[in-house]
Amino acid sequence: MPVPAPGMHSGSATDAALDLSMSEQAVPLYEAVVEFIANEVDPITDEFFRLGEGRIEHWGYGEGQLELLDGVKAKAKANGLWNFFLPDAETGEGLSNLDYAYIAAELGKNPLASECLNCSAPDTGNMEVLERVGTPEQKERWLAPLLSGEIRSAFAMTEPDVASSDARNIATSAVMDGDEWVINGEKYYISGAGDPRCKIMIVMVRTNPDGPPHRQQSQILVPMDTPGVEILGPMHVFGADDAPHGHMHLRFTDVRVPASNMLLGEGRGFEISQLRLGPGRIHHCMRSIGAAERALELMVRRGLNREAFGKPLARLGKNVEVIAKARIEIEAMRLMVLRAARAMDLTGNAEARIWVSAVKAMVPERVCQIIDEAIQIHGATGISQWTPLAGMYAGQRTLRLADGPDEVHWHVVGRAELTRYEDDHEPAVGPDTGREGRFSGPS
Amino acid sequence: MPVPAPGMHSGSATDAALDLSMSEQAVPLYEAVVEFIANEVDPITDEFFRLGEGRIEHWGYGEGQLELLDGVKAKAKANGLWNFFLPDAETGEGLSNLDYAYIAAELGKNPLASECLNCSAPDTGNMEVLERVGTPEQKERWLAPLLSGEIRSAFAMTEPDVASSDARNIATSAVMDGDEWVINGEKYYISGAGDPRCKIMIVMVRTNPDGPPHRQQSQILVPMDTPGVEILGPMHVFGADDAPHGHMHLRFTDVRVPASNMLLGEGRGFEISQLRLGPGRIHHCMRSIGAAERALELMVRRGLNREAFGKPLARLGKNVEVIAKARIEIEAMRLMVLRAARAMDLTGNAEARIWVSAVKAMVPERVCQIIDEAIQIHGATGISQWTPLAGMYAGQRTLRLADGPDEVHWHVVGRAELTRYEDDHEPAVGPDTGREGRFSGPS
Amino acid sequence: MPVPAPGMHSGSATDAALDLSMSEQAVPLYEAVVEFIANEVDPITDEFFRLGEGRIEHWGYGEGQLELLDGVKAKAKANGLWNFFLPDAETGEGLSNLDYAYIAAELGKNPLASECLNCSAPDTGNMEVLERVGTPEQKERWLAPLLSGEIRSAFAMTEPDVASSDARNIATSAVMDGDEWVINGEKYYISGAGDPRCKIMIVMVRTNPDGPPHRQQSQILVPMDTPGVEILGPMHVFGADDAPHGHMHLRFTDVRVPASNMLLGEGRGFEISQLRLGPGRIHHCMRSIGAAERALELMVRRGLNREAFGKPLARLGKNVEVIAKARIEIEAMRLMVLRAARAMDLTGNAEARIWVSAVKAMVPERVCQIIDEAIQIHGATGISQWTPLAGMYAGQRTLRLADGPDEVHWHVVGRAELTRYEDDHEPAVGPDTGREGRFSGPS
Amino acid sequence: MPVPAPGMHSGSATDAALDLSMSEQAVPLYEAVVEFIANEVDPITDEFFRLGEGRIEHWGYGEGQLELLDGVKAKAKANGLWNFFLPDAETGEGLSNLDYAYIAAELGKNPLASECLNCSAPDTGNMEVLERVGTPEQKERWLAPLLSGEIRSAFAMTEPDVASSDARNIATSAVMDGDEWVINGEKYYISGAGDPRCKIMIVMVRTNPDGPPHRQQSQILVPMDTPGVEILGPMHVFGADDAPHGHMHLRFTDVRVPASNMLLGEGRGFEISQLRLGPGRIHHCMRSIGAAERALELMVRRGLNREAFGKPLARLGKNVEVIAKARIEIEAMRLMVLRAARAMDLTGNAEARIWVSAVKAMVPERVCQIIDEAIQIHGATGISQWTPLAGMYAGQRTLRLADGPDEVHWHVVGRAELTRYEDDHEPAVGPDTGREGRFSGPS
Repeated sequence: MPVPAPGMHSGSATDAALDLSMSEQAVPLYEAVVEFIANEVDPITDEFFRLGEGRIEHWGYGEGQLELLDGVKAKAKANGLWNFFLPDAETGEGLSNLDYAYIAAELGKNPLASECLNCSAPDTGNMEVLERVGTPEQKERWLAPLLSGEIRSAFAMTEPDVASSDARNIATSAVMDGDEWVINGEKYYISGAGDPRCKIMIVMVRTNPDGPPHRQQSQILVPMDTPGVEILGPMHVFGADDAPHGHMHLRFTDVRVPASNMLLGEGRGFEISQLRLGPGRIHHCMRSIGAAERALELMVRRGLNREAFGKPLARLGKNVEVIAKARIEIEAMRLMVLRAARAMDLTGNAEARIWVSAVKAMVPERVCQIIDEAIQIHGATGISQWTPLAGMYAGQRTLRLADGPDEVHWHVVGRAELTRYEDDHEPAVGPDTGREGRFSGPS
Repeated sequence: MPVPAPGMHSGSATDAALDLSMSEQAVPLYEAVVEFIANEVDPITDEFFRLGEGRIEHWGYGEGQLELLDGVKAKAKANGLWNFFLPDAETGEGLSNLDYAYIAAELGKNPLASECLNCSAPDTGNMEVLERVGTPEQKERWLAPLLSGEIRSAFAMTEPDVASSDARNIATSAVMDGDEWVINGEKYYISGAGDPRCKIMIVMVRTNPDGPPHRQQSQILVPMDTPGVEILGPMHVFGADDAPHGHMHLRFTDVRVPASNMLLGEGRGFEISQLRLGPGRIHHCMRSIGAAERALELMVRRGLNREAFGKPLARLGKNVEVIAKARIEIEAMRLMVLRAARAMDLTGNAEARIWVSAVKAMVPERVCQIIDEAIQIHGATGISQWTPLAGMYAGQRTLRLADGPDEVHWHVVGRAELTRYEDDHEPAVGPDTGREGRFSGPS
Repeated sequence: MPVPAPGMHSGSATDAALDLSMSEQAVPLYEAVVEFIANEVDPITDEFFRLGEGRIEHWGYGEGQLELLDGVKAKAKANGLWNFFLPDAETGEGLSNLDYAYIAAELGKNPLASECLNCSAPDTGNMEVLERVGTPEQKERWLAPLLSGEIRSAFAMTEPDVASSDARNIATSAVMDGDEWVINGEKYYISGAGDPRCKIMIVMVRTNPDGPPHRQQSQILVPMDTPGVEILGPMHVFGADDAPHGHMHLRFTDVRVPASNMLLGEGRGFEISQLRLGPGRIHHCMRSIGAAERALELMVRRGLNREAFGKPLARLGKNVEVIAKARIEIEAMRLMVLRAARAMDLTGNAEARIWVSAVKAMVPERVCQIIDEAIQIHGATGISQWTPLAGMYAGQRTLRLADGPDEVHWHVVGRAELTRYEDDHEPAVGPDTGREGRFSGPS
Repeated sequence: MPVPAPGMHSGSATDAALDLSMSEQAVPLYEAVVEFIANEVDPITDEFFRLGEGRIEHWGYGEGQLELLDGVKAKAKANGLWNFFLPDAETGEGLSNLDYAYIAAELGKNPLASECLNCSAPDTGNMEVLERVGTPEQKERWLAPLLSGEIRSAFAMTEPDVASSDARNIATSAVMDGDEWVINGEKYYISGAGDPRCKIMIVMVRTNPDGPPHRQQSQILVPMDTPGVEILGPMHVFGADDAPHGHMHLRFTDVRVPASNMLLGEGRGFEISQLRLGPGRIHHCMRSIGAAERALELMVRRGLNREAFGKPLARLGKNVEVIAKARIEIEAMRLMVLRAARAMDLTGNAEARIWVSAVKAMVPERVCQIIDEAIQIHGATGISQWTPLAGMYAGQRTLRLADGPDEVHWHVVGRAELTRYEDDHEPAVGPDTGREGRFSGPS
């Protein structure tokens, strides 16, 4: 008998893990979000980006841009469409991961929607961490203005000089000196750190180089304006710098923050990561599915509206199959992400981590392929500024590297599968146990 | 706005279509099936095949073989584990498609399980058709002994000389002569027609060559022993003839059956197909997932039990990724098949046919790949008689050709996707509606 | 017997088509090119791009930038490393396509090399066309300064409003009015049209809308400064505008050019395309292989220099297989491109077009995958400005859409294969010709 | 600079490695082989297999079967079309590997051709070994009757209980006792050992369990009728036992052979393997390409001869692309195998082993896919006895496991690529060497 082990094997088919429908209480909220995006966010989107083109500061906003955004944010807050990313939070706004997943798919369809409802990464993860492990002082100083949407934040984990897929490689150091931590090192691809509204970072540092591997790291709060924090420049994503949001390259030189800026406690950086990464990955994946839906719609519309050799492109050669496969894979991915969200709700983030890795490994890679096929059917327009496809591709391709590259997640899932059988010495198939004939034939 | 059309697009996320859990009333039955297979079917399986090796007639059974089987069948019937494939049947044994799907996955794990519980293809489809559209006389003569497990049956649709993926190609003719139908033509890959217990066939014939395309065909009952029915020989499946079950090549020469053998009515052959194929395809797909589970288990066990270059094979090179992908794809396929079964329960076979095509296109192809990877990790043993893998591969590869080849199902899904937008003249993306900048970036 | 048909089927194995080695006379030139790039081009490359960063005009060059480039060009010209892209040209500098292919692979490794040796697209194709079909006046006016590297040029074929993969869709019209052609329409992705040195375009126009499909188009010379030629803006490639080179969106409004600007003759636009596209595609494909080599080198170096989980990345999981497949595919592609170049040399561009389509369909898609895998092993650095990979990816992805999208080339190859058997009524395999038993087994 | 290392990197483009054309002296032989197969072998093929169906002994031949074969063999020998598999043999019949590769592709098209010309595996490899390392006595006793086609032989390497991909796992032992070796162990998948004409085996044994890893094994001659050699039964290949050739499962119990039966010397088993495996793998791969050609022809013919939905199957959906890709991949594989054969001729088997692994890893996997696609277009007929496709699939699938599974060959190629850079500490790309901007764009 297989040894029971944490994993994604379905186990009993009779449990509630497969009820993937939205809860009844979430339905009105979901519907309100759909309506709000259609009525309030969609109408300002083009205008918002147009205003941005006229900005003077590359790493700033154009005249009127933030006012436009803040107006919609105020409406969202007034309507209670705000901060619902926190499951079971004491503030009471929380949704289950499953219910939130449905909403995340809608947020993925408009580039401003997440921020308008105060559900943007990395603020969501930062707020979740502060809410769960912050001290009252930390909450008052940073969580309150984040929850109200006054400031934004960043999360500094990845480093340029090491393979960050192995977190034990983290090299940025924090050393106690008096009652202050002194931080030195480099981080890069710190998304959002270019935004002038970004005021606070959570930084992953190595505090205990001689401790056991998963107790060497800590997470610590560093205000952006702390002396010694230097923005070396923006990292590009397929040639774009995504200003003013930005994915910044930072250097920390003798950056000093008070001991009270430590989160949860020295050596507990890993523990905090487990907390934040599960929900964040689910949100990313559901937004990815929203992006795939959008790409498929563009692919089909273009395929029907352009003709060559006497037929709409959509009906030429393999295109019908390409479209069919995209639809089937989108539905399969959607069910898998909902299943993972449900697992988190039922068993907690730690137990459900195999499911989270499964969808993180599965979704961005396939969504990249779907967007790529949509590009192909558009011809050169597909890689141009006339469709969102090139930007969507860059975003999804980046996801395959962020929050753990695909490889790490394949290994998490694969190892869990091995564990189920590892201590089990039932003899393998072979001459002694074999049997002539066919196991199962067509019938 | 997209024109609403039948399809697999998820529509409202708030409906019940995503509650994929087994119904409470089915749980005891499911558990009884699992237990019955473990306690009654598994123990006789090796013995059953061993007795078959000693048979004298190639197209018959060995001494004691059927007695062994009939003993278990009698127990199953006595325990009420019998004929539960008919949803909502008047006989009252029926399960929803969703509940049955869970059971089908269990049946897929043992090659005798389906027959022991009187749930073998093609009997299930034939019984379903007779139960739904048979006359009282037809039911008494053929449905009763099928339901009691006394006889077996076949379904003769595919023909050797035409592309049967386009059903309008059916060439076997039935012509009225007096009060009899006279049938001429050839059919092949008629599974089960080699079994001496097979007494009746449902045959797809062309009765109205000048009618509209989908009204040209009829389905008619032909007893196996009718004069003019000739078995030309067995068709092979990767070299195996699967005797005594067999996939036979039949010739019909002036085969005469009474007018009352017609099912439902002349020209309604297509209509009957719609009825039978949905559930049958779901059952096949769930059994396929059972097979994939078995292949994955064999792959992992072998990978852990053999070493090369100082490591278990499972930990060499890409094997962990291969195992992880298999697990992820099995879970995705399972959810999709359950989703399709649920769609059939909620909207009926006709409305749910896009979902059924989606899983028929998706599942056997991927299961073939998983079995192929399991073969690879076994080395030469993987293609030998020492594992069930080669036979499982042949079975799943055949499924990609049976009940509509993959290509037909990709097209059903692709066309449904096109239909959603086809009459919709919203301008496509292009210079006039385009907008500079990125649609969505990593964050 | 198959009907002989133009195609890529190898035919007699005994002919010279498979001698893919460089000719003896080309060896010194090839070696000189390799040396020149190493000694003259590589050393100025970083400096050239650095000077460009300081430019004032976005669509211009920085101070000293062109002087730097012109210095190297002068040296190349003085050394006879110039214009060797024209096979069998009367000017005598020509190389066979096969010999040139070897050189093109070297040019693909440095972004300035092509231009330094006056072998940049689209100038090469434009010069080839002018050399072959230009009138003495056209040659003097435009070919001479192109051959000497004084000016640059563009080729305007693709249009934003139609599927240009079907050339019959070309909508830009040219109508005779007196002794002038009057041109109206739009073109986009006109590469190089942003460069201030670009003085002349060859434009594909529709002159005979009622003619037979392949006689409706003409190619005509249009100086960039002709009144009515308007640059609407740059088209982006994954977010980059590639200034100052640029891929421009142009509008032609009552643009008038003299009748003598017509190339070869009215209605012969297709004929000219055949002339230019074969060699151009070969050059692109060999440069692509150069890019793949570069990506593989970066992948391996990175994989060896970074560690995670106690091992270099290159030795983790599937990475060794990924590297092996890249190497194998690069060698296979190289042989195929050389084979296609050889076919052009032996049979001419028209006969060899199936081979050209074969490599155009095969190479860019696989090179995209190899670059993508190199990106993955770099982590976030792979999509950044710190490696050339993101730019290389964008370039190769674009090639899958340019000069005929992949789909067109698959169809050219597939149709040629069908043609070999199409009029051949030898009975297919089936019951009458079948034979029991196995055709070939392992031995 | 990369450290030079053995590998498949093209090195100098100017050497003769890329002249892949057949030598002039081989042309008449090649043409004679093609003609001989058409005129002598093809006409007896169906008859040969028909006679086999009537045989009484399952592990024997039918009446007249061997006479038919021997007649053709005599003609081949008389015409000098015999034994040309040995490059540079002292017997003078040898061809270069390149020339032989062209002939092997022809041999792959008829299941009897190899044997008719005395070029069957495993006899070819066994003869090659005996010719190169055999003592005069060994040559007289075994090589002479093999060269004359009187007897056949087997090669016993693979074992059922270990992962034979790691040759250090070989467990069959040979121990000196007096002047005899005493052999104990099991081997399986010993192809040809079922043939009554098979008289001699070369057996890989472990003689020096405490020696260095690659000096522990020896190869030794064991006559089939030696006491203690027991055939346990045939191993199946996808359900077929391939009688009377067979892939046998053998047990060695205290099998005693004289010391003089050792080949080359104790501990030199690996060395001998290197000798035989290179050419054998090339031959297999060229025969595989012959099989792929045949599958493609069947696919196209079937696709043109069957209609559905108003069109020939070949023109429906993705089928044209499938056909195009098959043609392109066949040509790419052919060039690669020729390239590997050429490398063996120029540098010897040891130096060329990376090339041999490259084609062994590349070819059977892709040929399996091509055959699988040919099956799909045939519908159920594709897996039946009415086409050779199922048998061809089984044969090619087996090749992915024989002579080293794919995984071993990917690793050989991948490791060679790593070796080129391994000791090279040039800094990887990164912030210090990075440069803004694009490396190469479309032009």
